[in-house]
Amino acid sequence: MPSISPRSSGRVTISDIAERVGVSISAVSFALNGRKGVSEQTRARVRQVADELGWAPASAARSLAEARTETFGLVLARDPDTLGVESFYMQFLAGIESELASRSYSLLLQVVPTPEHELATHRKWRNSRRVDGVMLVDVTLDDPRIPLFREDGALPCVVVGDPSVSGGLPTVWTDDASSMREAVRSLAALGHRRIARVSGLAPLAHTRIRDDAFTDETRALGLEPVLLRTDYTPESGAVATREALRAAERPTAFVYDNDIMAVAGMSAVWECGLRVPDEVSIIAWDDSVLCEHTYPPLTALSHDVVGFGAHVARRLFDVIDGAEPAAFLDSTPALRERGSTAAPVR
Amino acid sequence: MPSISPRSSGRVTISDIAERVGVSISAVSFALNGRKGVSEQTRARVRQVADELGWAPASAARSLAEARTETFGLVLARDPDTLGVESFYMQFLAGIESELASRSYSLLLQVVPTPEHELATHRKWRNSRRVDGVMLVDVTLDDPRIPLFREDGALPCVVVGDPSVSGGLPTVWTDDASSMREAVRSLAALGHRRIARVSGLAPLAHTRIRDDAFTDETRALGLEPVLLRTDYTPESGAVATREALRAAERPTAFVYDNDIMAVAGMSAVWECGLRVPDEVSIIAWDDSVLCEHTYPPLTALSHDVVGFGAHVARRLFDVIDGAEPAAFLDSTPALRERGSTAAPVR
Repeated sequence: MPSISPRSSGRVTISDIAERVGVSISAVSFALNGRKGVSEQTRARVRQVADELGWAPASAARSLAEARTETFGLVLARDPDTLGVESFYMQFLAGIESELASRSYSLLLQVVPTPEHELATHRKWRNSRRVDGVMLVDVTLDDPRIPLFREDGALPCVVVGDPSVSGGLPTVWTDDASSMREAVRSLAALGHRRIARVSGLAPLAHTRIRDDAFTDETRALGLEPVLLRTDYTPESGAVATREALRAAERPTAFVYDNDIMAVAGMSAVWECGLRVPDEVSIIAWDDSVLCEHTYPPLTALSHDVVGFGAHVARRLFDVIDGAEPAAFLDSTPALRERGSTAAPVR
Repeated sequence: MPSISPRSSGRVTISDIAERVGVSISAVSFALNGRKGVSEQTRARVRQVADELGWAPASAARSLAEARTETFGLVLARDPDTLGVESFYMQFLAGIESELASRSYSLLLQVVPTPEHELATHRKWRNSRRVDGVMLVDVTLDDPRIPLFREDGALPCVVVGDPSVSGGLPTVWTDDASSMREAVRSLAALGHRRIARVSGLAPLAHTRIRDDAFTDETRALGLEPVLLRTDYTPESGAVATREALRAAERPTAFVYDNDIMAVAGMSAVWECGLRVPDEVSIIAWDDSVLCEHTYPPLTALSHDVVGFGAHVARRLFDVIDGAEPAAFLDSTPALRERGSTAAPVR
């Protein structure tokens, strides 16, 4: 229950709200704590006045054991310079925020340079109880965060990644293997016989899952997979594309692991004097507004990333409310055909 | 001073750190609170061990008046669906985070649908003291946040915007007027006589500043300004471009207010059967990796947005430490010429 601070502090108290609404202090307390004993009408009116007055629970004065911080935590272990490059994380953040906003929660965001710093941040949050729960992204094979969050006393969490790497922790995932297979089959159906995958960072679990699906599906179709490794930057995507196009047997189709590499790859194709889609087809993963507005617009594996972020946040609320750990499949990225894919000109 | 919790709580205490380092509890307290009385060597060692153990101040147990939350706040009043579109905010966030990370601060990020919700969030943060200070972005003409942060008892803040709209609050700004004049002059020098500006949202202060500079500079050169209004989305940028190209006197050059509108505008030019840069020149504001990797690569007004975010965060630390309100000029966006600008073919 929120403390009732003295008027002299300048803080808005629940007695201020009670006075304004014309109900008892207990009614306000019941309404703000989501307890029974007040009508829905009163609850709505109390919340409205509380918002108008800028009321907030006196978090630092609440008992430590019972306190909810009304905050979720997210750590991104990335070079700050590269974080703005992909649209994925901003959309994912926006989705988390849309869910948090509807419950008056905030997001504590920390960008750190290395996975070691991320572990230190999680230990600190756990000890200080700065957040009610955390979302774990960029899961790697043998991720050290998984055992950390399986310890007794760990903060509630949701893993964003394949159930095969989540160690039994609650997880929200997308079926990347099925999407990759669909992309490969669609290119093969157009007549492409040499298909390249421009793949992201090797230690990430979803990179491996997409790699395996790509290799399996191309081989199942009797084709030889061409796997090119990058670090997700457009530079590395352009370099990989140019090198592949110079090879004796050049690919006629490329599947990129993000949107900005697909843009850079398409520019590399033009620079090499080849045409998209007549001579080279291109598919981007993580469809975005960027993919819709290039020339030609990019065929892409399309996923509602904002909705994905919101889904992850929603599951974290469930975990905090006591839901059993489970794996939840988000919608599967679907191939959206635009102008960058066609039958190859022989 | 951090409280010394009993061992039974499982929390890492400063006595744990003292024991590990082999110094007194007061020495640890001095070191962690940045007070004099310990050598730099001891301070460094104490901080290192504190990090290793995952120590954190018991924030909820500290006295409310003295507590620092070690958190800065940022509210973005945007539709979550559009937030991922521009690279600006993710880069700006990354810059803030780089400065915060070096001081073990975190960012409390809240995305809200409207400016009214943003005001409510600031009132709540002020009452609950959830953050040590805030950064205000997307400043409008007659922004209601300015008087709010000039009230007694307001949280420390830094305004990101022109000193003419910051109401005397501390501000970090870029000289957009000079950059816009440079862009216009460079196009006129190439021989362009009809130049269009594809402008962002009208209520934003920096939109007005760029509008005025564009209009002044084109008129000073004896040209008639073409001002096209959009909402920053690539759709609106493409529509504005197509309409202008259909006009009797079509522009031969466009200056766009963000990178993604420039990409969409360039695609609209190709679709109209015109060539970039031979028939239409394009300049993007907010240079980005995207601008480097289109075909042709985009000439752009280039600004270190990551450095800008870090600068803003640094000034907020200064304000909290008692610096007098002042206006700080960040580096001026400079024209970086690439492949999308040339003399117009007649």
